[in-house]
Amino acid sequence: MKESDLLAHIQKRSANLAAAFGQVVVGPGDDCAVIRTPRGDEILLTVDHLVEGRHFEPGTPIDLIARKAVARSVSDIAAMGGTPAWGLATGCLPRGYAHADELFEAMHKWANHWGCPLVGGDISTSSGPMVLTVTVGGTMVDGAIARASEEERELAAWPHEYPRLPIPRSGACPGDALLTTGVLGGSLGSGHHLRFEPRVHEARRLHMLAGRDLHAMIDISDGLGRDGARLARASGVVLEIDASRLPLREGVESWRHAVRDGEDYELLFLVAPSALGEVRRVDATRIGTARAAAVGEQPGAWVNDPDGGRHDVGNWGWDHE
Amino acid sequence: MKESDLLAHIQKRSANLAAAFGQVVVGPGDDCAVIRTPRGDEILLTVDHLVEGRHFEPGTPIDLIARKAVARSVSDIAAMGGTPAWGLATGCLPRGYAHADELFEAMHKWANHWGCPLVGGDISTSSGPMVLTVTVGGTMVDGAIARASEEERELAAWPHEYPRLPIPRSGACPGDALLTTGVLGGSLGSGHHLRFEPRVHEARRLHMLAGRDLHAMIDISDGLGRDGARLARASGVVLEIDASRLPLREGVESWRHAVRDGEDYELLFLVAPSALGEVRRVDATRIGTARAAAVGEQPGAWVNDPDGGRHDVGNWGWDHE
Repeated sequence: MKESDLLAHIQKRSANLAAAFGQVVVGPGDDCAVIRTPRGDEILLTVDHLVEGRHFEPGTPIDLIARKAVARSVSDIAAMGGTPAWGLATGCLPRGYAHADELFEAMHKWANHWGCPLVGGDISTSSGPMVLTVTVGGTMVDGAIARASEEERELAAWPHEYPRLPIPRSGACPGDALLTTGVLGGSLGSGHHLRFEPRVHEARRLHMLAGRDLHAMIDISDGLGRDGARLARASGVVLEIDASRLPLREGVESWRHAVRDGEDYELLFLVAPSALGEVRRVDATRIGTARAAAVGEQPGAWVNDPDGGRHDVGNWGWDHE
Repeated sequence: MKESDLLAHIQKRSANLAAAFGQVVVGPGDDCAVIRTPRGDEILLTVDHLVEGRHFEPGTPIDLIARKAVARSVSDIAAMGGTPAWGLATGCLPRGYAHADELFEAMHKWANHWGCPLVGGDISTSSGPMVLTVTVGGTMVDGAIARASEEERELAAWPHEYPRLPIPRSGACPGDALLTTGVLGGSLGSGHHLRFEPRVHEARRLHMLAGRDLHAMIDISDGLGRDGARLARASGVVLEIDASRLPLREGVESWRHAVRDGEDYELLFLVAPSALGEVRRVDATRIGTARAAAVGEQPGAWVNDPDGGRHDVGNWGWDHE
């Protein structure tokens, strides 16, 4: 069974979790789950694997392994518009691994760097490759305002709702503009996948600038095609992406890589057209538009290439048997 | 480096987390971490590994693998006196593993059973053995009162503080009585390690019965000796355990197994002597006493055997290279 099929099963089985358990606001199927605490705080929750030989090659510097293990989960918090608050880490290490202390020290360092100190964890050994997991919890009522820049304080004073609501994948509307931060493609070859900066700051700014006009957001981990289609299905819209607008990483020669390569960890988001002016203060590129699905048409993501071709890119990206 | 040494390093490095990050109430080193949310809720957090070949043998029924993966973390929540509220699970599965859907369905079932629905997770494959992790969050302000028995409702009406505070390892005082729930020893041989019931209910009752007289608690996973010494060091006391009082699992012939075998997942706890009468309503056995360390003496756990021998049991238990 493919990972994507298995995840679909799990999400289907979990569809009624929020009805059965009052504390569950958002269950499986978004970048983060959302839990409500007894006093009404909303907590963002995410966990990600990092597996040797799959997410990083043997021989990768320990600091970069640790960085990526933490950054992947932090990126999920960013994709909801949240702020990382705490973390938990596990390491299942190859028997006899000599650098465990260095590895965990680096994970602690990066977790502190992104504001989600590691407050617990578990360690074990096995005959297999290294398997790390990092759980990160985030909050929408953040302490970030206190340590924010002058500009952020100004933005925070704007008359948008506070605490802000988590940004789901499911809120896109027909007519919304589709944008992405940064550049896409060639992440593995360029080493970007080990050094990317999770877009916590940009997501918060977007949220403050656009308020409720920021309708939907996801981070691009499995590829613009696959992740775009996930967002489209969750929102019940069709994404029309213009290949000629895709911002390509230096050295990336075809738009196809920008759609397919994955591990970009950029924000893919949709805003009401009226908010495009405000959003311009964040470094992002408009790459397309959302439209309503025609009668009988499935929600999904399409790329229109410069030669007039149309491509259903919902399966373009990274999957694993 | 041994797991216990590595954990000690990590805890030492994390000693100032609570000072540096206001949201951290309890960092690494207890059964759970404790985080404070913006509105003041305290969230319990724990994560545990389950590794094929170490925590369970190949060929173990899938339902029991899933059960243990969830139960270990639920037991940590119990050890703080909390109530499980939500979970996250990861599975790094052997490539080509054919029962992933069944495994995750069973994990969902058990998580729901203990009140901590799985709201998210991650799946991958590797060339190694199966590695599962389950993160569980818990709360001290629980919905359990609503669904509690008549007796629990009565207990909850008692004039103890509410919401209750998490029970740490560090609160034991000289003179406290040392008790354990259930029976000890022979967990692996008897299959108890796959079928134990996390002591959530007992811990809540203890908490309600004894209130602030319940000073310290831990769940016995690595062995009474090792875990008892952890609690003793955290509290700065010496535990004097009476071998003849140790409640032995059927088929266990020596008190040494009760101290050394581990994987009991029973509650080891200390109460003020004045609370012993009330605590009798929970099925637990008094096995010893805490005393102050003499000048120059290290905190730790000692067993007094029927022949007059004294044993420092701080290293009796399960460790892993």
